[in-house]
Amino acid sequence: MAGETDGFRFRRRVPEGDNRERLVCEDCGFIHYVNPRIVVAAVCTYEDRLLLCVRDIEPRRGYWTIPAGFLEEGEDPEEGARREAWEEAFARIEIRDLLGVYAVPRISQVHLVYRARLLDPAVRAGDETSEARLVRWEDVPWERLAFPTIERALRHFRAVSDRESIAPFRETL
Amino acid sequence: MAGETDGFRFRRRVPEGDNRERLVCEDCGFIHYVNPRIVVAAVCTYEDRLLLCVRDIEPRRGYWTIPAGFLEEGEDPEEGARREAWEEAFARIEIRDLLGVYAVPRISQVHLVYRARLLDPAVRAGDETSEARLVRWEDVPWERLAFPTIERALRHFRAVSDRESIAPFRETL
Repeated sequence: MAGETDGFRFRRRVPEGDNRERLVCEDCGFIHYVNPRIVVAAVCTYEDRLLLCVRDIEPRRGYWTIPAGFLEEGEDPEEGARREAWEEAFARIEIRDLLGVYAVPRISQVHLVYRARLLDPAVRAGDETSEARLVRWEDVPWERLAFPTIERALRHFRAVSDRESIAPFRETL
Repeated sequence: MAGETDGFRFRRRVPEGDNRERLVCEDCGFIHYVNPRIVVAAVCTYEDRLLLCVRDIEPRRGYWTIPAGFLEEGEDPEEGARREAWEEAFARIEIRDLLGVYAVPRISQVHLVYRARLLDPAVRAGDETSEARLVRWEDVPWERLAFPTIERALRHFRAVSDRESIAPFRETL
Protein backbone atom coordinates (compact mmCIF):
# COMPACT_ATOMS: atom_id res chain seq x y z
CA MET A 1 0.00 0.00 0.00
CA ALA A 2 2.68 2.45 1.04
CA GLY A 3 4.57 1.82 -2.18
CA GLU A 4 1.75 3.48 -4.07
CA THR A 5 2.75 6.85 -2.69
CA ASP A 6 6.25 6.69 -4.14
CA GLY A 7 7.23 9.83 -5.97
CA PHE A 8 3.91 11.62 -5.51
CA ARG A 9 3.69 15.33 -4.64
CA PHE A 10 1.29 15.96 -1.82
CA ARG A 11 -0.56 19.12 -0.81
CA ARG A 12 -2.91 19.50 2.10
CA ARG A 13 -6.55 20.11 1.15
CA VAL A 14 -10.08 18.84 1.75
CA PRO A 15 -10.92 16.22 -0.90
CA GLU A 16 -14.35 16.31 -2.53
CA GLY A 17 -16.91 14.56 -0.35
CA ASP A 18 -14.67 14.66 2.71
CA ASN A 19 -14.80 17.00 5.68
CA ARG A 20 -11.12 17.13 6.72
CA GLU A 21 -7.83 18.20 5.20
CA ARG A 22 -5.83 15.32 3.71
CA LEU A 23 -2.58 14.92 1.83
CA VAL A 24 -3.64 14.85 -1.82
CA CYS A 25 -1.29 14.14 -4.73
CA GLU A 26 -1.16 17.12 -7.07
CA ASP A 27 -0.47 14.92 -10.06
CA CYS A 28 -3.12 12.22 -9.79
CA GLY A 29 -5.40 13.11 -6.87
CA PHE A 30 -4.35 10.13 -4.75
CA ILE A 31 -5.40 10.78 -1.15
CA HIS A 32 -2.80 9.80 1.40
CA TYR A 33 -4.58 9.38 4.72
CA VAL A 34 -2.50 10.00 7.81
CA ASN A 35 -3.88 8.15 10.78
CA PRO A 36 -3.24 7.81 14.48
CA ARG A 37 -0.47 5.50 15.45
CA ILE A 38 -0.72 2.40 17.59
CA VAL A 39 1.81 1.80 20.34
CA VAL A 40 1.99 -1.76 21.65
CA ALA A 41 3.48 -2.49 25.04
CA ALA A 42 3.52 -5.11 27.75
CA VAL A 43 3.85 -5.22 31.51
CA CYS A 44 5.93 -8.38 31.77
CA THR A 45 6.42 -10.22 35.02
CA TYR A 46 8.50 -13.05 36.31
CA GLU A 47 7.11 -14.18 39.65
CA ASP A 48 6.87 -10.93 41.64
CA ARG A 49 9.20 -8.86 39.48
CA LEU A 50 8.50 -6.50 36.60
CA LEU A 51 10.59 -6.07 33.47
CA LEU A 52 11.80 -2.49 33.07
CA CYS A 53 14.22 -1.04 30.53
CA VAL A 54 16.26 2.13 30.32
CA ARG A 55 15.77 3.90 27.00
CA ASP A 56 18.91 4.46 25.00
CA ILE A 57 17.18 6.52 22.30
CA GLU A 58 15.40 9.85 22.23
CA PRO A 59 12.90 10.91 23.32
CA ARG A 60 13.47 10.33 27.01
CA ARG A 61 16.85 8.65 26.75
CA GLY A 62 17.93 7.46 30.20
CA TYR A 63 14.38 7.07 31.48
CA TRP A 64 12.67 3.82 32.37
CA THR A 65 10.00 2.11 30.34
CA ILE A 66 8.23 -1.16 29.83
CA PRO A 67 8.88 -2.72 26.40
CA ALA A 68 6.86 -0.58 23.99
CA GLY A 69 6.94 0.69 20.45
CA PHE A 70 5.02 1.46 17.30
CA LEU A 71 3.06 -1.33 15.70
CA GLU A 72 4.50 -2.06 12.26
CA GLU A 73 2.69 -2.46 8.97
CA GLY A 74 1.17 -5.91 8.59
CA GLU A 75 1.76 -6.77 12.21
CA ASP A 76 -0.66 -8.18 14.73
CA PRO A 77 -0.66 -6.10 17.97
CA GLU A 78 0.25 -9.01 20.22
CA GLU A 79 3.00 -10.05 17.83
CA GLY A 80 4.17 -6.43 18.00
CA ALA A 81 4.26 -6.46 21.79
CA ARG A 82 6.27 -9.68 21.74
CA ARG A 83 8.66 -8.19 19.17
CA GLU A 84 9.25 -5.09 21.29
CA ALA A 85 10.00 -7.20 24.37
CA TRP A 86 12.53 -9.14 22.35
CA GLU A 87 14.10 -6.09 20.67
CA GLU A 88 14.42 -4.07 23.84
CA ALA A 89 15.28 -6.72 26.38
CA PHE A 90 15.73 -10.06 24.59
CA ALA A 91 12.70 -11.11 26.60
CA ARG A 92 10.54 -14.01 25.51
CA ILE A 93 7.02 -13.36 26.71
CA GLU A 94 3.58 -14.89 26.66
CA ILE A 95 0.69 -12.42 26.41
CA ARG A 96 -1.97 -12.97 29.07
CA ASP A 97 -4.56 -10.32 28.32
CA LEU A 98 -5.22 -6.68 27.58
CA LEU A 99 -4.48 -4.42 30.55
CA GLY A 100 -5.39 -1.07 29.10
CA VAL A 101 -6.24 1.09 26.13
CA TYR A 102 -4.64 4.50 26.62
CA ALA A 103 -5.50 7.22 24.15
CA VAL A 104 -3.20 10.18 23.69
CA PRO A 105 -5.16 12.18 21.08
CA ARG A 106 -2.90 15.22 21.50
CA ILE A 107 -0.20 13.27 19.67
CA SER A 108 -2.56 10.96 17.77
CA GLN A 109 -1.59 7.78 19.54
CA VAL A 110 -3.46 4.81 20.94
CA HIS A 111 -1.52 2.57 23.30
CA LEU A 112 -2.50 -1.05 23.70
CA VAL A 113 -0.82 -2.37 26.84
CA TYR A 114 -0.92 -6.09 27.57
CA ARG A 115 -0.21 -8.19 30.65
CA ALA A 116 2.45 -10.78 29.88
CA ARG A 117 4.51 -13.48 31.53
CA LEU A 118 8.25 -13.64 31.03
CA LEU A 119 9.11 -17.17 29.94
CA ASP A 120 12.73 -16.79 31.04
CA PRO A 121 14.16 -14.32 33.59
CA ALA A 122 17.39 -13.92 31.62
CA VAL A 123 16.94 -10.47 30.08
CA ARG A 124 19.54 -8.06 28.74
CA ALA A 125 19.63 -4.73 26.99
CA GLY A 126 18.75 -4.62 23.29
CA ASP A 127 19.88 -2.05 20.71
CA GLU A 128 17.64 0.78 21.90
CA THR A 129 18.08 0.01 25.57
CA SER A 130 21.00 0.64 27.92
CA GLU A 131 19.71 -1.60 30.68
CA ALA A 132 17.04 -4.27 31.17
CA ARG A 133 16.16 -5.34 34.67
CA LEU A 134 13.61 -7.25 36.72
CA VAL A 135 12.49 -5.04 39.58
CA ARG A 136 10.18 -5.46 42.53
CA TRP A 137 7.17 -3.19 42.88
CA GLU A 138 8.79 -1.24 45.71
CA ASP A 139 11.82 -0.53 43.52
CA VAL A 140 9.96 0.96 40.55
CA PRO A 141 11.70 4.29 39.76
CA TRP A 142 8.51 6.37 39.63
CA GLU A 143 10.40 9.63 39.20
CA ARG A 144 12.35 8.28 36.27
CA LEU A 145 9.61 6.76 34.10
CA ALA A 146 9.72 7.79 30.44
CA PHE A 147 6.05 8.47 29.68
CA PRO A 148 2.73 8.99 31.50
CA THR A 149 1.25 5.85 29.97
CA ILE A 150 4.01 3.78 31.58
CA GLU A 151 3.06 4.99 35.03
CA ARG A 152 -0.66 4.51 34.41
CA ALA A 153 -0.11 0.99 33.08
CA LEU A 154 2.07 -0.01 36.02
CA ARG A 155 -0.41 1.33 38.57
CA HIS A 156 -3.29 -0.35 36.79
CA PHE A 157 -1.35 -3.58 36.62
CA ARG A 158 -0.83 -3.45 40.36
CA ALA A 159 -4.49 -2.66 41.02
CA VAL A 160 -5.65 -5.86 39.32
CA SER A 161 -2.68 -8.08 40.03
CA ASP A 162 -4.83 -10.58 41.93
CA ARG A 163 -7.39 -10.90 39.13
CA GLU A 164 -7.18 -13.58 36.46
CA SER A 165 -9.61 -11.93 34.07
CA ILE A 166 -10.09 -8.20 33.70
CA ALA A 167 -11.91 -5.59 31.70
CA PRO A 168 -9.10 -3.39 30.38
CA PHE A 169 -8.63 0.13 31.70
CA ARG A 170 -9.64 2.80 29.20
CA GLU A 171 -8.17 6.23 29.66
CA THR A 172 -7.40 9.35 27.72
CA LEU A 173 -4.13 10.97 28.73
CA MET B 1 2.54 16.55 11.83
CA ALA B 2 1.09 15.56 8.48
CA GLY B 3 1.69 19.01 7.11
CA GLU B 4 5.42 18.41 7.29
CA THR B 5 5.21 16.00 4.39
CA ASP B 6 3.81 18.57 1.98
CA GLY B 7 5.57 18.61 -1.36
CA PHE B 8 8.17 15.99 -0.50
CA ARG B 9 9.23 13.28 -2.95
CA PHE B 10 9.28 9.88 -1.35
CA ARG B 11 11.14 6.72 -2.30
CA ARG B 12 10.97 3.41 -0.52
CA ARG B 13 14.22 2.37 1.20
CA VAL B 14 15.63 1.19 4.53
CA PRO B 15 16.80 4.23 6.53
CA GLU B 16 20.11 4.03 8.37
CA GLY B 17 19.68 2.31 11.72
CA ASP B 18 16.31 0.86 10.76
CA ASN B 19 15.45 -2.66 9.65
CA ARG B 20 12.45 -2.04 7.38
CA GLU B 21 11.69 -0.16 4.19
CA ARG B 22 10.17 3.27 4.77
CA LEU B 23 9.08 6.18 2.63
CA VAL B 24 12.06 8.54 2.68
CA CYS B 25 12.10 12.00 1.14
CA GLU B 26 14.72 12.23 -1.59
CA ASP B 27 15.25 15.93 -0.94
CA CYS B 28 15.73 16.09 2.81
CA GLY B 29 15.72 12.52 4.15
CA PHE B 30 12.46 12.97 6.10
CA ILE B 31 11.13 9.51 6.97
CA HIS B 32 7.41 9.18 6.50
CA TYR B 33 6.31 6.22 8.60
CA VAL B 34 3.22 4.43 7.37
CA ASN B 35 1.49 2.64 10.17
CA PRO B 36 -1.42 0.31 10.68
CA ARG B 37 -4.80 1.94 10.80
CA ILE B 38 -7.28 1.85 13.62
CA VAL B 39 -10.92 1.14 12.91
CA VAL B 40 -13.34 2.07 15.68
CA ALA B 41 -16.79 0.53 15.84
CA ALA B 42 -19.64 -0.12 18.22
CA VAL B 43 -22.30 -2.75 18.71
CA CYS B 44 -25.12 -0.45 19.78
CA THR B 45 -28.27 -1.73 21.38
CA TYR B 46 -31.61 -0.38 22.39
CA GLU B 47 -33.32 -2.88 24.67
CA ASP B 48 -33.10 -6.14 22.72
CA ARG B 49 -32.38 -4.64 19.34
CA LEU B 50 -29.10 -3.98 17.53
CA LEU B 51 -28.27 -1.01 15.34
CA LEU B 52 -27.33 -2.05 11.82
CA CYS B 53 -26.68 0.10 8.77
CA VAL B 54 -26.55 -0.56 5.05
CA ARG B 55 -23.37 0.81 3.48
CA ASP B 56 -23.90 3.32 0.71
CA ILE B 57 -20.20 3.56 -0.18
CA GLU B 58 -17.62 1.17 -1.53
CA PRO B 59 -16.27 -1.23 -0.53
CA ARG B 60 -19.24 -3.47 0.15
CA ARG B 61 -21.96 -1.01 -0.80
CA GLY B 62 -25.36 -2.54 -0.04
CA TYR B 63 -24.04 -4.75 2.74
CA TRP B 64 -24.84 -4.44 6.43
CA THR B 65 -22.52 -3.14 9.08
CA ILE B 66 -22.39 -1.79 12.58
CA PRO B 67 -21.25 1.85 12.77
CA ALA B 68 -17.51 1.71 12.05
CA GLY B 69 -14.77 3.74 10.46
CA PHE B 70 -11.19 4.90 10.61
CA LEU B 71 -10.05 6.76 13.68
CA GLU B 72 -9.08 10.30 12.75
CA GLU B 73 -5.95 12.20 13.64
CA GLY B 74 -6.14 13.65 17.14
CA GLU B 75 -9.21 11.65 18.01
CA ASP B 76 -9.85 9.48 21.04
CA PRO B 77 -11.05 5.98 20.01
CA GLU B 78 -14.29 6.19 21.98
CA GLU B 79 -14.97 9.65 20.60
CA GLY B 80 -14.34 8.12 17.17
CA ALA B 81 -16.85 5.34 17.77
CA ARG B 82 -19.44 7.90 18.87
CA ARG B 83 -18.72 10.02 15.80
CA GLU B 84 -19.19 7.08 13.45
CA ALA B 85 -22.52 6.16 15.06
CA TRP B 86 -23.65 9.71 14.55
CA GLU B 87 -22.34 10.06 10.98
CA GLU B 88 -23.74 6.76 9.78
CA ALA B 89 -27.03 6.58 11.65
CA PHE B 90 -27.56 9.83 13.57
CA ALA B 91 -27.31 7.63 16.62
CA ARG B 92 -26.40 9.06 20.00
CA ILE B 93 -24.62 6.38 21.97
CA GLU B 94 -23.01 5.78 25.32
CA ILE B 95 -19.96 3.50 25.29
CA ARG B 96 -20.16 0.69 27.85
CA ASP B 97 -16.92 -1.19 27.40
CA LEU B 98 -14.52 -2.79 24.96
CA LEU B 99 -15.97 -5.88 23.28
CA GLY B 100 -13.07 -6.92 21.11
CA VAL B 101 -9.72 -6.16 19.54
CA TYR B 102 -9.66 -7.63 16.05
CA ALA B 103 -6.40 -7.55 14.17
CA VAL B 104 -6.38 -7.78 10.40
CA PRO B 105 -2.62 -7.69 9.72
CA ARG B 106 -3.09 -8.64 6.06
CA ILE B 107 -4.46 -5.15 5.49
CA SER B 108 -2.66 -3.50 8.43
CA GLN B 109 -5.75 -2.76 10.47
CA VAL B 110 -6.65 -3.04 14.14
CA HIS B 111 -10.35 -2.85 14.95
CA LEU B 112 -11.47 -1.68 18.36
CA VAL B 113 -15.11 -2.65 18.80
CA TYR B 114 -17.06 -1.32 21.76
CA ARG B 115 -20.35 -2.24 23.40
CA ALA B 116 -22.64 0.77 23.50
CA ARG B 117 -26.14 1.79 24.46
CA LEU B 118 -28.32 3.79 22.11
CA LEU B 119 -29.63 6.78 24.02
CA ASP B 120 -32.51 7.26 21.59
CA PRO B 121 -34.05 4.66 19.23
CA ALA B 122 -34.73 7.27 16.55
CA VAL B 123 -32.01 6.45 14.01
CA ARG B 124 -31.84 7.26 10.31
CA ALA B 125 -29.40 6.90 7.46
CA GLY B 126 -26.42 9.23 7.33
CA ASP B 127 -24.45 10.31 4.25
CA GLU B 128 -22.59 7.04 3.77
CA THR B 129 -25.55 4.86 4.68
CA SER B 130 -28.68 3.97 2.72
CA GLU B 131 -30.57 2.54 5.68
CA ALA B 132 -30.22 2.45 9.47
CA ARG B 133 -32.36 0.04 11.42
CA LEU B 134 -32.80 -1.57 14.82
CA VAL B 135 -32.99 -5.33 14.36
CA ARG B 136 -33.57 -8.27 16.65
CA TRP B 137 -30.89 -10.95 16.93
CA GLU B 138 -32.96 -13.42 14.89
CA ASP B 139 -33.23 -10.90 12.07
CA VAL B 140 -29.51 -10.20 11.65
CA PRO B 141 -28.76 -10.62 7.92
CA TRP B 142 -25.75 -12.91 8.38
CA GLU B 143 -25.35 -13.51 4.65
CA ARG B 144 -25.29 -9.81 3.93
CA LEU B 145 -22.75 -8.52 6.47
CA ALA B 146 -20.06 -6.27 5.03
CA PHE B 147 -16.92 -7.58 6.74
CA PRO B 148 -15.71 -10.58 8.77
CA THR B 149 -15.08 -8.42 11.83
CA ILE B 150 -18.76 -7.42 11.88
CA GLU B 151 -19.86 -11.01 12.14
CA ARG B 152 -17.24 -11.82 14.78
CA ALA B 153 -18.19 -8.79 16.85
CA LEU B 154 -21.91 -9.58 16.70
CA ARG B 155 -21.39 -13.20 17.70
CA HIS B 156 -19.06 -12.18 20.52
CA PHE B 157 -21.55 -9.58 21.66
CA ARG B 158 -24.23 -12.23 21.84
CA ALA B 159 -21.96 -14.64 23.71
CA VAL B 160 -21.44 -12.20 26.58
CA SER B 161 -24.74 -10.34 26.45
CA ASP B 162 -25.60 -11.35 30.01
CA ARG B 163 -22.28 -10.14 31.43
CA GLU B 164 -21.79 -6.69 32.85
CA SER B 165 -18.00 -6.73 32.79
CA ILE B 166 -15.93 -8.60 30.23
CA ALA B 167 -12.40 -9.21 29.12
CA PRO B 168 -12.44 -8.22 25.45
CA PHE B 169 -12.14 -10.82 22.74
CA ARG B 170 -8.79 -10.74 20.94
CA GLU B 171 -8.64 -12.28 17.51
CA THR B 172 -6.57 -12.13 14.36
CA LEU B 173 -8.68 -12.37 11.22
